Amino acid sequence: MISFYNDYNELAHPQILEDLMKLQDQINVGYGNDQHVLNAIEYVKKHIGRNDVDVHFIHGGTITNVIGLKTMLQSYEGVISCDTGHIIGHENGAIEAVGHQIVQVPNVNGKLTVENIKKALEAHSKEYSVKLKVVYISNATEFGTVYKKHELEAIHNFCKENDLYIYMDGARMATAMSSDYNDMTLNDIAKYCDVFTIGGTKNGMLMGEALVITNPEFSKGIRRTIKQRGALLAKGYLLGIQFETMFKENLYFELSDTAIEMAKYLRDKLNEMGIRLAFEQESNLVFPILSEDLAHDLASDFMFEIMDKVAENSRITRFVTRYSTTKEDIDALARKIEDFSRKRS
Amino acid sequence: MISFYNDYNELAHPQILEDLMKLQDQINVGYGNDQHVLNAIEYVKKHIGRNDVDVHFIHGGTITNVIGLKTMLQSYEGVISCDTGHIIGHENGAIEAVGHQIVQVPNVNGKLTVENIKKALEAHSKEYSVKLKVVYISNATEFGTVYKKHELEAIHNFCKENDLYIYMDGARMATAMSSDYNDMTLNDIAKYCDVFTIGGTKNGMLMGEALVITNPEFSKGIRRTIKQRGALLAKGYLLGIQFETMFKENLYFELSDTAIEMAKYLRDKLNEMGIRLAFEQESNLVFPILSEDLAHDLASDFMFEIMDKVAENSRITRFVTRYSTTKEDIDALARKIEDFSRKRS
Amino acid sequence: MISFYNDYNELAHPQILEDLMKLQDQINVGYGNDQHVLNAIEYVKKHIGRNDVDVHFIHGGTITNVIGLKTMLQSYEGVISCDTGHIIGHENGAIEAVGHQIVQVPNVNGKLTVENIKKALEAHSKEYSVKLKVVYISNATEFGTVYKKHELEAIHNFCKENDLYIYMDGARMATAMSSDYNDMTLNDIAKYCDVFTIGGTKNGMLMGEALVITNPEFSKGIRRTIKQRGALLAKGYLLGIQFETMFKENLYFELSDTAIEMAKYLRDKLNEMGIRLAFEQESNLVFPILSEDLAHDLASDFMFEIMDKVAENSRITRFVTRYSTTKEDIDALARKIEDFSRKRS
Amino acid sequence: MISFYNDYNELAHPQILEDLMKLQDQINVGYGNDQHVLNAIEYVKKHIGRNDVDVHFIHGGTITNVIGLKTMLQSYEGVISCDTGHIIGHENGAIEAVGHQIVQVPNVNGKLTVENIKKALEAHSKEYSVKLKVVYISNATEFGTVYKKHELEAIHNFCKENDLYIYMDGARMATAMSSDYNDMTLNDIAKYCDVFTIGGTKNGMLMGEALVITNPEFSKGIRRTIKQRGALLAKGYLLGIQFETMFKENLYFELSDTAIEMAKYLRDKLNEMGIRLAFEQESNLVFPILSEDLAHDLASDFMFEIMDKVAENSRITRFVTRYSTTKEDIDALARKIEDFSRKRS
Repeated sequence: MISFYNDYNELAHPQILEDLMKLQDQINVGYGNDQHVLNAIEYVKKHIGRNDVDVHFIHGGTITNVIGLKTMLQSYEGVISCDTGHIIGHENGAIEAVGHQIVQVPNVNGKLTVENIKKALEAHSKEYSVKLKVVYISNATEFGTVYKKHELEAIHNFCKENDLYIYMDGARMATAMSSDYNDMTLNDIAKYCDVFTIGGTKNGMLMGEALVITNPEFSKGIRRTIKQRGALLAKGYLLGIQFETMFKENLYFELSDTAIEMAKYLRDKLNEMGIRLAFEQESNLVFPILSEDLAHDLASDFMFEIMDKVAENSRITRFVTRYSTTKEDIDALARKIEDFSRKRS
Repeated sequence: MISFYNDYNELAHPQILEDLMKLQDQINVGYGNDQHVLNAIEYVKKHIGRNDVDVHFIHGGTITNVIGLKTMLQSYEGVISCDTGHIIGHENGAIEAVGHQIVQVPNVNGKLTVENIKKALEAHSKEYSVKLKVVYISNATEFGTVYKKHELEAIHNFCKENDLYIYMDGARMATAMSSDYNDMTLNDIAKYCDVFTIGGTKNGMLMGEALVITNPEFSKGIRRTIKQRGALLAKGYLLGIQFETMFKENLYFELSDTAIEMAKYLRDKLNEMGIRLAFEQESNLVFPILSEDLAHDLASDFMFEIMDKVAENSRITRFVTRYSTTKEDIDALARKIEDFSRKRS
Repeated sequence: MISFYNDYNELAHPQILEDLMKLQDQINVGYGNDQHVLNAIEYVKKHIGRNDVDVHFIHGGTITNVIGLKTMLQSYEGVISCDTGHIIGHENGAIEAVGHQIVQVPNVNGKLTVENIKKALEAHSKEYSVKLKVVYISNATEFGTVYKKHELEAIHNFCKENDLYIYMDGARMATAMSSDYNDMTLNDIAKYCDVFTIGGTKNGMLMGEALVITNPEFSKGIRRTIKQRGALLAKGYLLGIQFETMFKENLYFELSDTAIEMAKYLRDKLNEMGIRLAFEQESNLVFPILSEDLAHDLASDFMFEIMDKVAENSRITRFVTRYSTTKEDIDALARKIEDFSRKRS
Repeated sequence: MISFYNDYNELAHPQILEDLMKLQDQINVGYGNDQHVLNAIEYVKKHIGRNDVDVHFIHGGTITNVIGLKTMLQSYEGVISCDTGHIIGHENGAIEAVGHQIVQVPNVNGKLTVENIKKALEAHSKEYSVKLKVVYISNATEFGTVYKKHELEAIHNFCKENDLYIYMDGARMATAMSSDYNDMTLNDIAKYCDVFTIGGTKNGMLMGEALVITNPEFSKGIRRTIKQRGALLAKGYLLGIQFETMFKENLYFELSDTAIEMAKYLRDKLNEMGIRLAFEQESNLVFPILSEDLAHDLASDFMFEIMDKVAENSRITRFVTRYSTTKEDIDALARKIEDFSRKRS
């Protein structure tokens, strides 16, 4: 069984486990005050190209979103997200559980647009509406699309004019940055976003996200918030060591480069076979539209997600590539598709 | 520098990292639905000696307490804890942050007593008080003391008569069970507690606590609660594999047996040198009362915690032993103390 | 200045203040345990025609919704509402502030439909979505429309089959019941809804809503919840006396009958003058579509709400009638409209 | 039956109801934006002697405490209160329900002292403790005691030096100000407190507390918070008119002067009869220590509260005087006590 199901179905890249093994007996102080965390913070800052940002390592994506948004919001304030935002339908109401309304607007290709943010603001101008304060976006998005610099800049400018702040969920920041469609650096992201995350779980780490705060206002009390929400690991160095491994040199982006390489290889193979994609391949998520029969046939040898019906006997499917995906995996998939077609014709 | 500072200042027992390394490329489904989690649940159940309990693995102690108590409480209900309870002073108001009042009563040797629970109930009998629903206890306690069977049974009986439920925080369940003072099995714990935890972080795991629910009422919606509070790891098998390693055979208790062995060795050494303990050594926490001068002297070679002043120039200190503590570590400590005494006399 | 702005811009019906005056010196126990509250509960039950319901009086609409929904929801559960639901855009995120996500679906004429509830359920079938538990509807709706028995029955049946519960926000229950379009009694409402409210604020009381719980499951801890959310009035008899006045005989519905009478008179006048309504007049909210010039002209003598633009120079407006609205008020409005038309032609 | 049970067992002072009656048909805009609220704010500011304070009217004491503290606290911050604080044992965990831990310290005569605040701070200096931000005090206290200027000034100074803020619960501010022991004005209160309240419910109003914010930092978003917590009355003028009545001239303090007059008359009567008080009579709460037999005998004709046992057959009791208490009421009580004594001797 070959998996294209997601980017978190293996423990970790071998280098991660090797480095942990080397350090298994080392004595470290608790709660993220150890040297590995301090080093890793420096490495991440170097990759961002700025020293004046505040970096914290947290074990998972949902809790990082909760903490990142919580630190930006007063109790009476809310969030704008497009309807496909991960925080809306995939986190079990985690943001509402800590007290905040999310106002949703239609997505455009998985993205939030200035026009839709504006509409949300206008519809919530009255005192009895929630006060909108933070714009939530993901990069890459749930559809694997990637923000262009001019798009993010436009959102940023609109937000500054309207007393709004930007939170970017970077659970898939790695593949967003490695995307051929990307025209931004982490430095650009830091310039335009008040808070953003750099996801490790979906790019070869056991677990771990970096929460990066560029607006010092939102650093106030942040360690208390992390602790209070149950996210201050006793063995913080478990995260510190992994982020060291990833960001000391360039391993983090080497892995996502591979994932992107494989996504393009898969896209090309699908193109060759005349299979249409539901969305442009921009990052490591590929959405072929398959007949239900084909999807069913493939499912015996490959793991992938079968999503919405788009026509009679026709489904959007999701194939995810990752650092460990190989051309052989994709070739095997292509062969299986060809076999299916041959039998049918 | 030799550490007696805490039981979470090394990554993990070598077996843990070896097992992770072996499985680093294995494909597993996400969110704790994998085979390792399923196996580990079976192993834990076998150790408890009951099949009708509900087991979940969560990454840290604070969040496990939040989830365990949250699932037991309606929004208008509260918790009774003794004043030294970890949830009161060590978790940044995490329980209150999810909406629940904790009513505190004086501890007796780090423990909660029936008499004090009764007083709390009487003081909160009016409708305008919080409705008390759950009794929170720790085993071992913050003072390293261990509940005796008759004590827990008495609390259990009182609770049943008074519509109260018991949550036992077992962050240090391993050393509690290995204690010479302990007269209970995990099966007893399961018999007396509605929900309890079995801590891994403080006993050789990278991180991880087992949440055990014996009262089916409190299993309702539990996975939703775990997800909503940001504690459903994408790579749930990271916890599953570690709990397999620990509970497949008996490694979990072998490690705590060593920790207890070392605590007793330390206690005996201190006794020999005429150093008094603030509390009986029952588990892996040893609290020698040291002169401030001696404490200061030791601090150059040993990590340990300096706590409350008990007299002029006299402090309670806390030394924690663990699976990796050696007799050599303790002998070195003893020599240093002896050297100090010699110089002074 | 004649007001059609809302149904809460006068203190109270004269009978309310007279009855309060009569009782101003009477000694009553606090917190809603007095005889007036007990009497009023009996009167309300008699109007519902059932003795097995649980009735509580609360000071305002938003907090009644918060308490009513809170008592129905576990912390990991959410609400379905149509997009025009009062709890979504008019209560400042009050439901999210106590921890619950609201999933919104498109309204049909201000109402929720079985089809849309079904879609919401299907879109939230995964474990990582919020667990949907309660269906929120208003009667009358924000558009003044009124649920028909077969509509509510269909929702009820769908809910029973799908483990969902119904909360009906009856802030305008009075005018819903008095509507010509209504084919239900309070007894029907009680039969189909697990929890509903009977609003006083918008029908002649100083303030006050009755929270009616028909599903005993949701009565558990309800007084604690009311107290904890700051809604247990010290002088509960202030609400008890008013509900006595309203429900001892039939004053409550006499007032809404007048409001409906006036709404129909207004509708007919507008019809005669060829002014189109945005929604059918079903209760006491009338939504004429006016040219912006006319609206502006009327605003000098009349209070009403100017809402969405529907075409160039054309707006939906909202006129609200109430127990104190008179034919003279409406005739004056009609004259002003006619004058405007004459001048223009 | 003559009531000394509490200060909220009658609807309202006659002037309140008369003024409401006069205005029953007046059209007013909703949500506290009406002229009566604006006038009342001016009158309250004049009584405080400052124009730069922010005043809001809220319906009840518990919710005013919730809102006042919520607006002062970030989500990770907590409150210090003495153990008899109303927010601890009398509000059903309302502060915790909105997310904040309350750290309690022993009271001294019902009051919080600098020494005890200091101890709380020291015990919560670690990052894993809740961050203490607000000091909660009541004036008058639950024991009817009244803060002296030098006491409040000392707390204020300590708070300023330690980045703490002061919230004063003035549910009984009226009788505190009228007390013979009081040496402060509302202007002093405003000088020393960041937020405080002026209670109406316990001094002749139907309901209503003024929330006064002197620290502009805590005014941010306050109306949103009020709305979100269900405390923005649709008919805000119901509160506005009552506060006009009370503060236009001096009615508010005339009523509390009477209550104090009566408390002193009662105290003197008790003194004459040799009955000891558990606390000094400073405001309108009088705590005679009565034999259980006497208390039981009195209970047939008088309403009052029987509290803690202080010795065999001996109880602290609580008698509350108010604007409507008369010398005749107290004389009747005294006669009953004398009759009882005579019979016994």
